[in-house]
Amino acid sequence: MPNVVEKVFPVEALREFCARVFMHFGVPKTDATQAADVLSAADLRGIDSHGVARMRSYVELLSEGLINPKPEVKIVRSTLSTSTIDGDNGLGLVVGPRANQVAMDIAERAGSGWVSVMNTNHFGIAGYYTLKAVERDMIGWAMTNSTALVAPLWGVERMLGTNPIAIAFPGKHEPPIVLDMATCTAAYGKIEIALRKGEKIPAGWAIDSLGRVTTDPADVLAGGALVPLGSDRERGGHKGYGLAMMVDLLSGALSGANWGPFATPFALRQTVPTRSVGKGIGHFFGAMRIDGFIDIDSFKSQVDEYIRVFRATKPAPGTSGPLIPGDPERESENIRRKNGVPLILPVVKDLGEVSKVTGIPFD
Amino acid sequence: MPNVVEKVFPVEALREFCARVFMHFGVPKTDATQAADVLSAADLRGIDSHGVARMRSYVELLSEGLINPKPEVKIVRSTLSTSTIDGDNGLGLVVGPRANQVAMDIAERAGSGWVSVMNTNHFGIAGYYTLKAVERDMIGWAMTNSTALVAPLWGVERMLGTNPIAIAFPGKHEPPIVLDMATCTAAYGKIEIALRKGEKIPAGWAIDSLGRVTTDPADVLAGGALVPLGSDRERGGHKGYGLAMMVDLLSGALSGANWGPFATPFALRQTVPTRSVGKGIGHFFGAMRIDGFIDIDSFKSQVDEYIRVFRATKPAPGTSGPLIPGDPERESENIRRKNGVPLILPVVKDLGEVSKVTGIPFD
Repeated sequence: MPNVVEKVFPVEALREFCARVFMHFGVPKTDATQAADVLSAADLRGIDSHGVARMRSYVELLSEGLINPKPEVKIVRSTLSTSTIDGDNGLGLVVGPRANQVAMDIAERAGSGWVSVMNTNHFGIAGYYTLKAVERDMIGWAMTNSTALVAPLWGVERMLGTNPIAIAFPGKHEPPIVLDMATCTAAYGKIEIALRKGEKIPAGWAIDSLGRVTTDPADVLAGGALVPLGSDRERGGHKGYGLAMMVDLLSGALSGANWGPFATPFALRQTVPTRSVGKGIGHFFGAMRIDGFIDIDSFKSQVDEYIRVFRATKPAPGTSGPLIPGDPERESENIRRKNGVPLILPVVKDLGEVSKVTGIPFD
Repeated sequence: MPNVVEKVFPVEALREFCARVFMHFGVPKTDATQAADVLSAADLRGIDSHGVARMRSYVELLSEGLINPKPEVKIVRSTLSTSTIDGDNGLGLVVGPRANQVAMDIAERAGSGWVSVMNTNHFGIAGYYTLKAVERDMIGWAMTNSTALVAPLWGVERMLGTNPIAIAFPGKHEPPIVLDMATCTAAYGKIEIALRKGEKIPAGWAIDSLGRVTTDPADVLAGGALVPLGSDRERGGHKGYGLAMMVDLLSGALSGANWGPFATPFALRQTVPTRSVGKGIGHFFGAMRIDGFIDIDSFKSQVDEYIRVFRATKPAPGTSGPLIPGDPERESENIRRKNGVPLILPVVKDLGEVSKVTGIPFD
């Protein structure tokens, strides 16, 4: 089991390394620092698949000239409360934060701000963006479409990305409620981990290349697909499928980006789609001023009370009761800020390769 | 099986009957017609649990004075793109359409409009509202919280409503894409139907009063609960739980309505919550002008193409391939407009009772 062995790094070291690597490829310092901040937030929050583990893919795309290191991010259309942004094929880790900033600035003036983004790339964890809004006493929304990995209910092909939805609500004394979820049942990273460990996956996570439910992770890589939240018709798989489509339409079709099976790949090893129906992939951000609806203090107190009421729910057998969305990520962040971020050896090796190529030290 | 026997009624007859009943209880004619329109839309679209089957509950609440037949629906707070509305304890079937109208009117001016509503009651099917936005070349959103029936993941008590999310996107030549989904695995109505038929329910729909997975519908009524979309931890039950919470916070906490286990009951036979944390239940409406983001024609053409691409997905074994969200409801509407609305005998009997009480003929 060499892959479960881990090496621990202080988050500052990872952030610094990533920023320097981005700069090596021509990303301006402010942008590089921003991009590294999004990535390291994923590692801190325990979403390991979306953190520095992706550095190698970003580096490959940058060195092949497939991502623009110096994008001119432009607003191409606006109303009082909406904007469409062209990300100029920049890193999603740079375009995302700027577009999210635009959404929040619009909200400051108009009560709410809604931004659809095209011509962009993968933006890291959706929850990162919503937490920025929370700092400004807003409710933050973030979605993105992504490379197709998920089959529609009753379909056999990979047609949709894992298309996450995130939304965050600020509390007063309690921490914010932060929902950040892929619209499929299980993350692709979990399939890869099961494969490495030689373990089976639960029925309801994936199908094989013939559309049959599978418990063998190898089937997923061999032309299979993930399935939408709900897994099958009986348990509401049409709902997860519909949510994935919602994210795709708001992020992709509404901005003029690619959608569905045509979303651009986020790594060189992925298949290039058969055709293009827009520019890059797409994101969707929203920010709503709480005082556009209700007194801020009164809302935050209600959120506190909400959290306490739900924590006090009678626990199911064998559990310690319901969590609040955002609990596991916050707990991970507390631990990892103190103790460092554990990386599995394949990721350490990837970062070593990046170090070799760029000459930026990593150990 | 007396309950599966059906009697068929022209939709116009049902609509007329409901409107006259509402008027009998003092609802003004325009409002009564509006309310009957929302109800009969549910019956047309095949969401039988939300149509005239609910008439008896509405009548009971109206005759007990628990719903205000002549609400003064008021905007209590606004920004350029947001509003909070006080429904004055009116029928949700009246307050909902007015609040949705406000959201669309705001969007006309500001690009998007977002309305949170308190002091209201159950508003029928969420999809109804989103289709109004589609008629105006907007993307429509509708959510509502409701009486607690669903347990949080890892909880045993009923803490959340079935809290639906609806969103609709207009096509050009193709019909709109309309997602309208409860955030739990299966509707409560399906549990009742299984009980009447003496059938088991699938594992993953519900838990018993001790929090154990059950396949006996009687267990759900005897203190059990529905479970969130995703069913259990392994299949992503925390995601459905998070979505239900999102709907609850946007509709309830943000407007100043009740939330979670404190949502007011929609029928006399339901338990009255132990305390009140706001006014009535809450809704949340959104409308986004498509031309706030992209050319309307270009977007609608992409939606057409989107639908065609997804319909052409390779079908899973034993299926004819993926549906598009809204397909089943539209198909039902086409059939029922022509052939009439089939009502099961218990509903026919309920409407007969309503007829007897009000003196308005029904047969």
